[in-house]
Amino acid sequence: MTSTDFIAEPRSPQVVITREFDAPRELLFRAHTDPDLLVQWLAPPRLTMTVDRFDLRDGGTWRYQYWEPDGTDYAFHGVFHGDPCRDSIVRTFEFEGTPGHVSMWTVTFTDHGGRTLLSHNTVYQSVADRDLDLRSGMEESVQHSMDRLEGLLARLAPVSR
Amino acid sequence: MTSTDFIAEPRSPQVVITREFDAPRELLFRAHTDPDLLVQWLAPPRLTMTVDRFDLRDGGTWRYQYWEPDGTDYAFHGVFHGDPCRDSIVRTFEFEGTPGHVSMWTVTFTDHGGRTLLSHNTVYQSVADRDLDLRSGMEESVQHSMDRLEGLLARLAPVSR
Repeated sequence: MTSTDFIAEPRSPQVVITREFDAPRELLFRAHTDPDLLVQWLAPPRLTMTVDRFDLRDGGTWRYQYWEPDGTDYAFHGVFHGDPCRDSIVRTFEFEGTPGHVSMWTVTFTDHGGRTLLSHNTVYQSVADRDLDLRSGMEESVQHSMDRLEGLLARLAPVSR
Repeated sequence: MTSTDFIAEPRSPQVVITREFDAPRELLFRAHTDPDLLVQWLAPPRLTMTVDRFDLRDGGTWRYQYWEPDGTDYAFHGVFHGDPCRDSIVRTFEFEGTPGHVSMWTVTFTDHGGRTLLSHNTVYQSVADRDLDLRSGMEESVQHSMDRLEGLLARLAPVSR
């Protein structure tokens, strides 16, 4: 299993997460854009995920929910910016529990000779907003998701070595 | 004339511009949301401005152009996030000449006893994107716009002292 780099500089409203996967970027793109695949890895620990809409095009909107075992839900939505493609996906992100707080996510997929360097770049409206996410256990949650993504990719692309 | 504070920290993909105006925030909000008013102050020096669309609602899109005297144009578009109101307006921003590069603008209007503290907060996908704007003369352009905005507000609200 490879490791996840998690960079959150002081005094900057940004988080950059990178990880290399032993899979082609086509598979990484599918895992980020096919709702049936997305729900298998993105949710934080112990939560399940459903996708309401995922209109993958410039100006299209998306919305998904995370669910606690007791039925409590957390809903998120946003807008795709630019044509999502195997180079990058740009989307805004709002948690419906904190209206007015918007972040912007840029995901890029870089080919490393058949392996893929995945980068998740998030910018917030303020360092305070970023730090709220950090204090809510973001790093642990991301590590969990990335490990699940690695497991999913292995199921999608069995490689004999 | 009051002064404009322009804050661009090193290693942070953000610019924060603040200025206090001798006008109520209702007027500031109108100057930011009525296309007939917007075109009177927002464009950089020597350029004129036209507004293609300005659908001021959560999820609504906007598009405007700056024009050189020779007819060259620079077009920009984006999406409003959340209901624009007298507290804040959040919108994304893309220059059509550099697709894939998106910034997010949060404008807030704070009442200071009849005067208004205006804040323009911009976050970029990277420090490199922010620095491109800085090197293109952003600070001079903002100072120019803020001075024109002050002039416009005085025309909208003649105050006898």
